[in-house]
Amino acid sequence: MIYQNPKYLKSVNMNGKEKDTNILNEIAKLEKTHGKFFNTQKILLATDGSVTTILDVLHGKISIKTLVQEFEKADEKLAKLLNIKVNDDVNYRVVLMHKDDKPLIHAISYIPLDRLDDNFKRDLIMADMPIGRILRKYNIESRREVNNVAIEKTNNDLIELFDSNADLLTRDYNIIRNDEVLIWIKEAFPLDYFSKQ
Amino acid sequence: MIYQNPKYLKSVNMNGKEKDTNILNEIAKLEKTHGKFFNTQKILLATDGSVTTILDVLHGKISIKTLVQEFEKADEKLAKLLNIKVNDDVNYRVVLMHKDDKPLIHAISYIPLDRLDDNFKRDLIMADMPIGRILRKYNIESRREVNNVAIEKTNNDLIELFDSNADLLTRDYNIIRNDEVLIWIKEAFPLDYFSKQ
Repeated sequence: MIYQNPKYLKSVNMNGKEKDTNILNEIAKLEKTHGKFFNTQKILLATDGSVTTILDVLHGKISIKTLVQEFEKADEKLAKLLNIKVNDDVNYRVVLMHKDDKPLIHAISYIPLDRLDDNFKRDLIMADMPIGRILRKYNIESRREVNNVAIEKTNNDLIELFDSNADLLTRDYNIIRNDEVLIWIKEAFPLDYFSKQ
Repeated sequence: MIYQNPKYLKSVNMNGKEKDTNILNEIAKLEKTHGKFFNTQKILLATDGSVTTILDVLHGKISIKTLVQEFEKADEKLAKLLNIKVNDDVNYRVVLMHKDDKPLIHAISYIPLDRLDDNFKRDLIMADMPIGRILRKYNIESRREVNNVAIEKTNNDLIELFDSNADLLTRDYNIIRNDEVLIWIKEAFPLDYFSKQ
């Protein structure tokens, strides 16, 4: 029965349970080569919930500092990532999530502007507001799909931003609404962050 | 501008940022009287993501044991909780989320049957599948709103189920789709669970 509906066929094959399992396997693989991660690190890599909410409950209400906020025309790579046309308008934002003077997570986001309503757009561009908080403010129903998790070499900018030389735990994921990518996000934090109870 | 749209008026006033802050305040209040919680405990109380996914990444892919699965006619209290009519059909399910022989979280759910499609209903009733996994399987876009967090006295059933005399950390929340309550869930675990890194 289930396979007669193409929408369900797609979801069973490409997403849902199987994709979840893949990300769990990827995390387990990383742990094999790099040693065990801490619980909070693993949750931050795997969760399909708001990262802002998790940081809020661990550190008290967090803030973001916007490092880059600009509009771009999608090149081929970005068009493919977001399933839009080349030259479509995209919002590119880089932020540091932090609690007071304690940096927490670095996040890059791409958002196709055509998929945003005006209120969301204004908060995104002008308000230094975490995306998780914007989604809640407007009661947006969505789902999140983690695409990749990885350990990456750090770089001079992030060494300075985080005050840490440690390599980075990273992931990228889509926030999907109306079956379209509303937001593509890549998050990173040093391996020696979130390493306490 | 924002206040001219009644939908946004409602969301800004009643939900989103303010409601989030309330739950964080409630958790902070509980910590004042009962001592600090562990990070994983706080995340499990506050997250708006899938609890199944969090347990999967911490323990390896978890399972559920269905303790009760039955249909009820909504009484006044339940009708109010779910915003349905008295006597509407509701699915009532009680499960224990566990990894092998290790119990993890006890969960009660109420779901108005009219709001489910047949595939979801079948998996819910027949498949011993966690709700978070059903939502992903069918790519359901939704949002979660935590209503309450509390510490509650345990009882004989749960002492036996969890093999722990500790009081319980509990929360209840709605999973909302199409601006309606799709699922009401109450989760509970002993205060001495999730207390390691």
